[in-house]
Amino acid sequence: MRIALIGNYGHQSLVIRSVEAVEGTQITGLEGFDEKYLENLRQRCPRAAQGAKLYPDLKTLLNDDNFDIASICTRFGEHTFPLLLSAEKGKHIIVEKPVATELADLEEVRQKVKEAGVQLTAMLPMRYGAPYRKAKEVVDEGTIGEVLHMWSQKSYKYGTRGDWMQKREFYGGTIPWVGIHAFDYMRWTSGREYKAVAAFHGTVGNPADGELEMVSGVSFQLDNGGTALTSIDYLNPDAAPAHGDDRLRLAGTLGTVEVYDFGTKARLITKDEPPRELELPEKDPHGFLRDFILRIEEDQDVGISAEDSFWLTEVSIKARISADEGRVIPLFKPPAAE
Amino acid sequence: MRIALIGNYGHQSLVIRSVEAVEGTQITGLEGFDEKYLENLRQRCPRAAQGAKLYPDLKTLLNDDNFDIASICTRFGEHTFPLLLSAEKGKHIIVEKPVATELADLEEVRQKVKEAGVQLTAMLPMRYGAPYRKAKEVVDEGTIGEVLHMWSQKSYKYGTRGDWMQKREFYGGTIPWVGIHAFDYMRWTSGREYKAVAAFHGTVGNPADGELEMVSGVSFQLDNGGTALTSIDYLNPDAAPAHGDDRLRLAGTLGTVEVYDFGTKARLITKDEPPRELELPEKDPHGFLRDFILRIEEDQDVGISAEDSFWLTEVSIKARISADEGRVIPLFKPPAAE
Repeated sequence: MRIALIGNYGHQSLVIRSVEAVEGTQITGLEGFDEKYLENLRQRCPRAAQGAKLYPDLKTLLNDDNFDIASICTRFGEHTFPLLLSAEKGKHIIVEKPVATELADLEEVRQKVKEAGVQLTAMLPMRYGAPYRKAKEVVDEGTIGEVLHMWSQKSYKYGTRGDWMQKREFYGGTIPWVGIHAFDYMRWTSGREYKAVAAFHGTVGNPADGELEMVSGVSFQLDNGGTALTSIDYLNPDAAPAHGDDRLRLAGTLGTVEVYDFGTKARLITKDEPPRELELPEKDPHGFLRDFILRIEEDQDVGISAEDSFWLTEVSIKARISADEGRVIPLFKPPAAE
Repeated sequence: MRIALIGNYGHQSLVIRSVEAVEGTQITGLEGFDEKYLENLRQRCPRAAQGAKLYPDLKTLLNDDNFDIASICTRFGEHTFPLLLSAEKGKHIIVEKPVATELADLEEVRQKVKEAGVQLTAMLPMRYGAPYRKAKEVVDEGTIGEVLHMWSQKSYKYGTRGDWMQKREFYGGTIPWVGIHAFDYMRWTSGREYKAVAAFHGTVGNPADGELEMVSGVSFQLDNGGTALTSIDYLNPDAAPAHGDDRLRLAGTLGTVEVYDFGTKARLITKDEPPRELELPEKDPHGFLRDFILRIEEDQDVGISAEDSFWLTEVSIKARISADEGRVIPLFKPPAAE
């Protein structure tokens, strides 16, 4: 599988980190990068990036037709154009989440990807993290019964942010950019679906005085009548031991399981057993890319499907609209494609 | 100060626990209790309850006129009648939260208490807990800057619940009964005010199949444009080390402070200092009653005022209505009484 990297605004590093380890993949083209980056890439990925070539623009890259997968990391509000062109050319797609920042764009991409019959996955690697996989395992084994309430936290250090992130037009909002991770890992670990959303957010405290929201609070109604909440903020202090203070608590009919300590540990409490830390599975740094390749080459239902990528994007955009407009928004997941 | 205990459905224990230690207070009357309870009370409070007398009904108690403070713990949906009668008689009032379970009742009580010129406080003792006092201290000292996002958790063991708690008419809902504690300690520690609320709740998983909500998720918009969330559930597992898994996280412009470990510890992170546990002030088991006496006798603005008691009840009822009706509800705190 030949991969082209299009744009360098998000987590191309996610693909780059895995490509050297996933046999049968290589990076053949880059658009939106410079010579220095390419040089550095060849050193980091001597097997996978040796033959990579720089392209001056997207049109030239597409005309050269030297790749199978487009890995798209343009500014989030500008994914639509490269997505549509790539799908039209029959390329499979890895795209920085959110897939789109507006519902109309999302719908267009959804249709085009369906028509083109290509595979697509959004960059949602958090579910590959060991504590989240453990939490899902605990739920799947029935240890905590049916999940009725969830809470998740995405708290990031503000650090340094590009000016473009201060514009809704390019950035899309903190709920779709940051919250979407939690919406994915809550849904995936619990097996529950979102039925309605209500959210508030605010730009208060933004050091650049821009449109980037510093805080968001999102609440969901679940398909079983349960509830879920997500805390999202850029207020994780500089001296915190990790960039992200990521957390999850699943409360079920038979127990609770939590991801805590900056997303590094998992803990269980049940009816019969007091709090205890859970042993975690081994780290899986390559799963994201490996699963996508299995999806393309062997049609296996592994990793994050196009359907899930679109749905989580839709949930995120609607949560942002709820916060923008001060209203509760119902959520209906489209039926799975035939 | 002579105190009459009216009804035994909530936390009369809160008054009883303090009365022996607070000089100048005594329990003189009980309505809704039996001989055995009184006997036991006299043993527990040899100084304060020796002269206490049982009354067969509220009318007889009020006619005897042998008390200054009515401590009202009827079923939550039935507070209004004893509240109105007590205020009319010029009695000061301690009342189990929520003050009322319906807005019309609350308004009637608010008016009557104002007309009567009596003092009133709702049973909201959590802010007297050492970790919450510490969190407020940290905010007041400016250590974490302006609070922009809050999350709180009230997770209780389901345990054994009276049948009356399965009826909205008597119980009033889990948001007003349990959530109100978190709404109080978030507001009190942060110094922020609620401007809008959106909530979801559900009775799913209720072992008695009744109207008591097992889970709720409440989100607020704050007066400074910030956000706040409260997780409320009856899913704290039996083997958890405490009845309540109560938590709080305040995220400010300069740092975060948290109450964690089942509401027993507090932790700080700032720009310059990694996570560290905070030393807590000494326990203060009598503060609730002592502050109310100071409010009555010396007109000191300490503890939970009538204004705050009404406001937190209003916020709680409106949060419940938001969940019942699936809509965002704006919140306007009435201006302070002259």
